Amino acid sequence: MKLKDLVGLRFKERPADCVIDSHAFSVRGGYIKYVSNGIYSLYTPMKRVTSKIEAIIRDEMEKVDSQEVMFPVVLPGSLWEESGRYESVGEELLRFTDRNRAKMVLGMTHEEAAVQLVREYGSTYANYPFSIYQIQTKFRDEARPRAGLIRVREFTMKDAYSFHTSQEDLEAYYDRMAEAYFRIFKRAGIPEVVSVKSDSGMIGGSVSHEYMLLVDAGEDSIVLCKECGYSANMEAADNTVDNSGSAPIGELTKVHTPNAKTMDEVCGFLHAKVEESCKAVVYQKNMTDEYVVVFLRGDYEVNETKLVNLIGDKVHPAEITDGCGIVAGFCGPVGLKADCQVIYDKSLQGIENLVCGANEVDYHYTGMNLARDCEGVEFVDVAKIKEGGICPCCGKKTITISRGIEVGNIFQLGTKYTESMNMTYTAEDGKTKTPIMGCYGIGVGRLAASVCEAKHDERGPIWPITIAPWQVHLCCMRVDDSACKAEADRIYEELQNAGVEVIYDDRDVRAGAMFADADLLGVPVRIVVGPKGLANGEIELATRDKSVQEQVKKDEIVAKTQELIQTLTDKIMQA
Amino acid sequence: MKLKDLVGLRFKERPADCVIDSHAFSVRGGYIKYVSNGIYSLYTPMKRVTSKIEAIIRDEMEKVDSQEVMFPVVLPGSLWEESGRYESVGEELLRFTDRNRAKMVLGMTHEEAAVQLVREYGSTYANYPFSIYQIQTKFRDEARPRAGLIRVREFTMKDAYSFHTSQEDLEAYYDRMAEAYFRIFKRAGIPEVVSVKSDSGMIGGSVSHEYMLLVDAGEDSIVLCKECGYSANMEAADNTVDNSGSAPIGELTKVHTPNAKTMDEVCGFLHAKVEESCKAVVYQKNMTDEYVVVFLRGDYEVNETKLVNLIGDKVHPAEITDGCGIVAGFCGPVGLKADCQVIYDKSLQGIENLVCGANEVDYHYTGMNLARDCEGVEFVDVAKIKEGGICPCCGKKTITISRGIEVGNIFQLGTKYTESMNMTYTAEDGKTKTPIMGCYGIGVGRLAASVCEAKHDERGPIWPITIAPWQVHLCCMRVDDSACKAEADRIYEELQNAGVEVIYDDRDVRAGAMFADADLLGVPVRIVVGPKGLANGEIELATRDKSVQEQVKKDEIVAKTQELIQTLTDKIMQA
Repeated sequence: MKLKDLVGLRFKERPADCVIDSHAFSVRGGYIKYVSNGIYSLYTPMKRVTSKIEAIIRDEMEKVDSQEVMFPVVLPGSLWEESGRYESVGEELLRFTDRNRAKMVLGMTHEEAAVQLVREYGSTYANYPFSIYQIQTKFRDEARPRAGLIRVREFTMKDAYSFHTSQEDLEAYYDRMAEAYFRIFKRAGIPEVVSVKSDSGMIGGSVSHEYMLLVDAGEDSIVLCKECGYSANMEAADNTVDNSGSAPIGELTKVHTPNAKTMDEVCGFLHAKVEESCKAVVYQKNMTDEYVVVFLRGDYEVNETKLVNLIGDKVHPAEITDGCGIVAGFCGPVGLKADCQVIYDKSLQGIENLVCGANEVDYHYTGMNLARDCEGVEFVDVAKIKEGGICPCCGKKTITISRGIEVGNIFQLGTKYTESMNMTYTAEDGKTKTPIMGCYGIGVGRLAASVCEAKHDERGPIWPITIAPWQVHLCCMRVDDSACKAEADRIYEELQNAGVEVIYDDRDVRAGAMFADADLLGVPVRIVVGPKGLANGEIELATRDKSVQEQVKKDEIVAKTQELIQTLTDKIMQA
Repeated sequence: MKLKDLVGLRFKERPADCVIDSHAFSVRGGYIKYVSNGIYSLYTPMKRVTSKIEAIIRDEMEKVDSQEVMFPVVLPGSLWEESGRYESVGEELLRFTDRNRAKMVLGMTHEEAAVQLVREYGSTYANYPFSIYQIQTKFRDEARPRAGLIRVREFTMKDAYSFHTSQEDLEAYYDRMAEAYFRIFKRAGIPEVVSVKSDSGMIGGSVSHEYMLLVDAGEDSIVLCKECGYSANMEAADNTVDNSGSAPIGELTKVHTPNAKTMDEVCGFLHAKVEESCKAVVYQKNMTDEYVVVFLRGDYEVNETKLVNLIGDKVHPAEITDGCGIVAGFCGPVGLKADCQVIYDKSLQGIENLVCGANEVDYHYTGMNLARDCEGVEFVDVAKIKEGGICPCCGKKTITISRGIEVGNIFQLGTKYTESMNMTYTAEDGKTKTPIMGCYGIGVGRLAASVCEAKHDERGPIWPITIAPWQVHLCCMRVDDSACKAEADRIYEELQNAGVEVIYDDRDVRAGAMFADADLLGVPVRIVVGPKGLANGEIELATRDKSVQEQVKKDEIVAKTQELIQTLTDKIMQA
């Protein structure tokens, strides 16, 4: 199509509210339009990108024998009551009533709908295993949408659900799906995506993995071991601490520590090592307001996901009130008189001689020994692993922490949904059994934005040819020069006849404006037809990233363009 | 794919709650699954049908230079407040609040979102005309969903919006779109769709047309003139009545009409013609409860759409209370003392001598003459046209009334949305003007169900090859016969390699069950591999409708199948 007909505007200035580059380019390039908080319309260039991603996903889903279906966006609340999630999921689940006052929800994920769809079909073992997927709009009422299409409230998602009669069968299929996911990301131009162990959150199940694109703008922290290949989301990463070599056991002594509240200040004041201190972090449970005190080594932070999984309730930072027994800033395990749940993190294990709060304003203990001075101490892992920490897999101090965007996730759900929703099958032996489920998601818009985040320069996106809105951007530099215009028109027509997707800029604008727009549209192959080159019978053929930039004989331009498209495509497929 | 792997069950029995055939086959054939009132999941066969329809629509939208975009399903209420529809649309618009108590709606149509998307782009005349469309989920909280996918609450719709600087330009584009619509319906296998003049309803605008598939199960009444080609939805059809030859003027006489309440009973009792009676139909306005009395010829019915358009408020049948001045069953224009709006339908025009109610229990008038006996009588058209009525176009008594399903609609919106939402452009002369809009809808699922309604026999759908879930249904009649199985396997593989979409039934079931399933899936080309034919080196090639049924040499089966697919496709394209 012609650029002058393309609906949408492009902007020179970076919008002030865009923190990350992909968001800025999505707005500047006329890809998306803000409609409401976390809700966008897509202009044609972004719709073309997402449609191409969807086509890749469909192709790969077919390869793993998943059948395309379609679930509703609006679901009856009763369906979510069956699984228990109507109650258990927070405000992200948008609940409302219809004209007949029936409870409804906006689907944020479709495990319930999947079970409802196949409950009868899946009533005999002979029909297993099977897998279904949809590509459909979802709504998640996020508290803090951000970063353009990266974290939105409404989004298009591919969600697949598989059903099995054994854990082994689920695992085998899970592995096939994992391979399909890597192929999808490779074909979308981001082969560098890594799979990491993750926390299953409100979806449930025991084993799950996230696919992470490592970019600085990512909102997740990814724990990686370069040595053995271990990878996990920070939320799910085990933390191991080596406390060998810490000071020997000493005497419990109460010391006056005026004006020192943080453990760093206390240790500084006492000339003690913060690595041999025991700090307290105090939470309250969401449902009961009961206090939860976590003791951990002074230089570690609480991993709240692990904490929540341990105690089975969400938490918020505590509001410490008079009389609750907790002395803010001086809380310690010795003589703690509060009515609260006490948790000892593994990072304290093996330290014989600790600095800790004395549960009294302006006082701490030194020489505290948990085994000696406290009762019933059990160590659990609720701390965040740190850069340079010990790899839970190979045991070496090789951990690095990177930022990542989650571009997909897969879950082994077990029987969470099938059991609660009474889906059963008659096994070969005649017994009634509960099927085992897996589920597998990819956010289409987020994937598009993530590719942009990973593949751009200061002037705009550099779309991989497999998902680019068009394959070729054709620029006619002088529409007032009839030879130049005629040649560009000819190339436009011939490329279209050859099935090439071309965006053709035949506007009467300056070269600077033309190239700025081309850079914002990020089309990987560019043809520049100008009078100067034409005087030598030549036309410029280049890639958006300038790795190719050559003068081509005008009679060869169509063939050379097709070759270049093929080369770029092959490069992606072989990555 | 293999039929034995297809997720979903097929049923022999017609479900009791299915009134129309397409609904029954959608359930029996494993196409759809009821989730909630008017909300369905789609199994793979229906998803494949709708995907093919969507591909046809995309192709035709591209031909009329419409650009694909995507609007949100969930829209801010403020956007609908801009257009005034947040207030004006009834309960079909599902309104709710998000976690931050912001007003939201589920998009039932996207005029507001379209204007919001292009308001800046459309600020200069140079960018006009332009057209955008999406294929996306919509939700309309229908009071009475029915008939499977025909009238649902959640549905996938193609909705296009065009923007123009002149009425002429809109009309020219409207005509192009009208042609595209006919091509879409032809390509979907229903060339018999007719375009009819329609009422614009809550969408607004002055001119609109609906595309009607004439089937007995349709819920719309379509007014057609076989003579001149006039066509209209009953809601929008003008009614003309010829009262020449009715009785001459007489004397107004009050008569006792005990036990006669309906006008038919009264006329029977009085030996009068119902065609020379004046009956009353009483409504109340929705917003004010004010009474509206419509007087019309005894043998006509009120066209409520025309009435609503006339009075500018919705109406409901009146609850006639004591003291309101209306005597139920005896209401007439002479001496009516109620506080109400009185409307005289054109069907009364030219009748000099009428029977009518006397506003007194058990009494009617004869010899009533509106001009003589009543004041301020003005005739308006609020009656339904009848079978055999006068064509508003050619004036002949040629009207027939058919049932139809609306499979698409197009509207000339004028400036309803652009004006209310402050969309303006700078014209070539520098003046600020308001653009003119058109909008164009097709419900994808309803179209699929409508095709099924028009193309089926007693055993199941007969899908047109262009939108069939698969092109070929391959039956292996004896999987326990190794030669038979090997031959069917070979054909399956070769057809797939040739790019043919095959559903392959290699289950070990009886022929009856196999054919019943094939009939329910309605795949247009069928190949039956059986030992009997194979003994002669032959395989059966047939169409679902049995218009073709032949024995083909086994070496020629793949080529002949491809030929048959081409023939069926050509037939549709040439219809």
